[in-house]
Amino acid sequence: MAGREAIILDWGTTNFRAYRFDAGGVLVAEHRAAAGILSIEKGRFEASLDREIGPWITAGTELFFSGMITSRNGWVETPYAETPASLEALATASVSRRHASGASMRFLPGVAMRHPAPDVMRGEEIQVFGACLPEEDAVVVLPGTHSKWVRHREGRIEAFHTFMTGEVFAALKGHTILGRLLPEGAAGGPEAFAAGVRHMQHHAGAGLLHAAFSARSKVLFNELAPTDIGEYLSGIVIGAEIAGGLALGWDPAAIRLVGEPALAARYAQAARIFGLVSEIAPADTTVRGVRRLAALKETAHDGRRS
Amino acid sequence: MAGREAIILDWGTTNFRAYRFDAGGVLVAEHRAAAGILSIEKGRFEASLDREIGPWITAGTELFFSGMITSRNGWVETPYAETPASLEALATASVSRRHASGASMRFLPGVAMRHPAPDVMRGEEIQVFGACLPEEDAVVVLPGTHSKWVRHREGRIEAFHTFMTGEVFAALKGHTILGRLLPEGAAGGPEAFAAGVRHMQHHAGAGLLHAAFSARSKVLFNELAPTDIGEYLSGIVIGAEIAGGLALGWDPAAIRLVGEPALAARYAQAARIFGLVSEIAPADTTVRGVRRLAALKETAHDGRRS
Repeated sequence: MAGREAIILDWGTTNFRAYRFDAGGVLVAEHRAAAGILSIEKGRFEASLDREIGPWITAGTELFFSGMITSRNGWVETPYAETPASLEALATASVSRRHASGASMRFLPGVAMRHPAPDVMRGEEIQVFGACLPEEDAVVVLPGTHSKWVRHREGRIEAFHTFMTGEVFAALKGHTILGRLLPEGAAGGPEAFAAGVRHMQHHAGAGLLHAAFSARSKVLFNELAPTDIGEYLSGIVIGAEIAGGLALGWDPAAIRLVGEPALAARYAQAARIFGLVSEIAPADTTVRGVRRLAALKETAHDGRRS
Repeated sequence: MAGREAIILDWGTTNFRAYRFDAGGVLVAEHRAAAGILSIEKGRFEASLDREIGPWITAGTELFFSGMITSRNGWVETPYAETPASLEALATASVSRRHASGASMRFLPGVAMRHPAPDVMRGEEIQVFGACLPEEDAVVVLPGTHSKWVRHREGRIEAFHTFMTGEVFAALKGHTILGRLLPEGAAGGPEAFAAGVRHMQHHAGAGLLHAAFSARSKVLFNELAPTDIGEYLSGIVIGAEIAGGLALGWDPAAIRLVGEPALAARYAQAARIFGLVSEIAPADTTVRGVRRLAALKETAHDGRRS
């Protein structure tokens, strides 16, 4: 990126985020919009890009795309780099295109794991490289609709596992008897969240299908206020993810949390209940990851030139 | 029941089932209707009963009510008998009312467990007593929207645990990305069901939130046909219940399945994959349970008379 203006895009299913850097590598502007790929007609991605940040783009700009914009339903589908996947492997598997202005565009790949069972991610991998030092041994947790637990070791993503935590929480709250017991607009307290995590911790063996029903039983026996069901259920589901993540056997001294601050704080609280130390990563992991990847490319190019 | 005409009602959330016996205790008629309590206006239960089976009821008839008709949202709310709960305790906690015709009506109670965590059932308890011999040591599994694993020992329901299997399956299929991948009207094959059970068995530690996502990854990698997602997911969810049931530590030599034949057969197949023997109980467990309870009452009455 050094010497050229650059734009890093984190373009997902529901959100569009862009970061603009000057030729000296200094962040000079940020843009966010609810312009995720689900809201954009197939074939209209370049027009959407221009509508959001057109004035930033000149012939000399370098653009980096990360997130679901590189999936089958996005603009340019990139392959998956397979685990163990290094930052170099991501750079190699990225796909180049040219913008109408002449600017170069690089679409980053996702990462796939084949064994012991197939799993995929797209967008989180660059955040992992942004959240870790090159030679660090770390377990990175990225909470969300489809949370990821990722093991980074010797400069590579060695393995990872997806948990459908956010999506299952929404389905339980929106489409089961548990949600129907919850009064409209009820907020709930942090104590209910902790109670859910503890309940899940003590019933991890019997699993989520059993633990979730306790929301109903506890309301019947006045051990839980109906207004607290949402928070309690959030604790149950996040607790199930943490119990599952610990069962992977990676035995982390600490987990590094990458995500929105409010959600990361919720995970940190749940981890503490499980006796697990957590650290919250800086907010700009996508930018850090892409800058590491871009620097790498320049080194490689320099190598070829020498 | 001996000496009087009797009617046993299994009246749940969605279904109404009635069994008519003559004074000699012989089953002479059955009636089924989609007249569950959710479809009936509060205060209209007696009218609904009369509409369904009015001609069966005379002043000398004895009616027994089991199922959600005895819940807060039903006709007559009965208390919960607490575990360990015997058939005698159910008889004692039942509530009597008189029908307009003069017929006697007995509403059976549900069962509650308080420790290690609260849990409740209403309707399944009488099926358990119908499925077990009085002194039998047995683990009874009642698959459904809210499946129950019940331990029957020394003539009592000692403990039980609910799993939200059916409801979570419907929520995952109807309200997550997994269902959106499934083509409308696709049937799927039995092999996909078995594959889901085996996947869950091998990833029981990481849990349902993780295992469910494999439906998406396997479709991406052509290891699963989109049309098979429903069956695969059914295997994942039922597998999660069996893994959770085994984690209760009851260590059953066999589980006894009580439920609709097609669903019971599905559980039997899943249990077999887990190396667990299962037996399918006769279909009329509610009737058997109520007849045992009624016989008990008569013995008690006889006792008082002597």
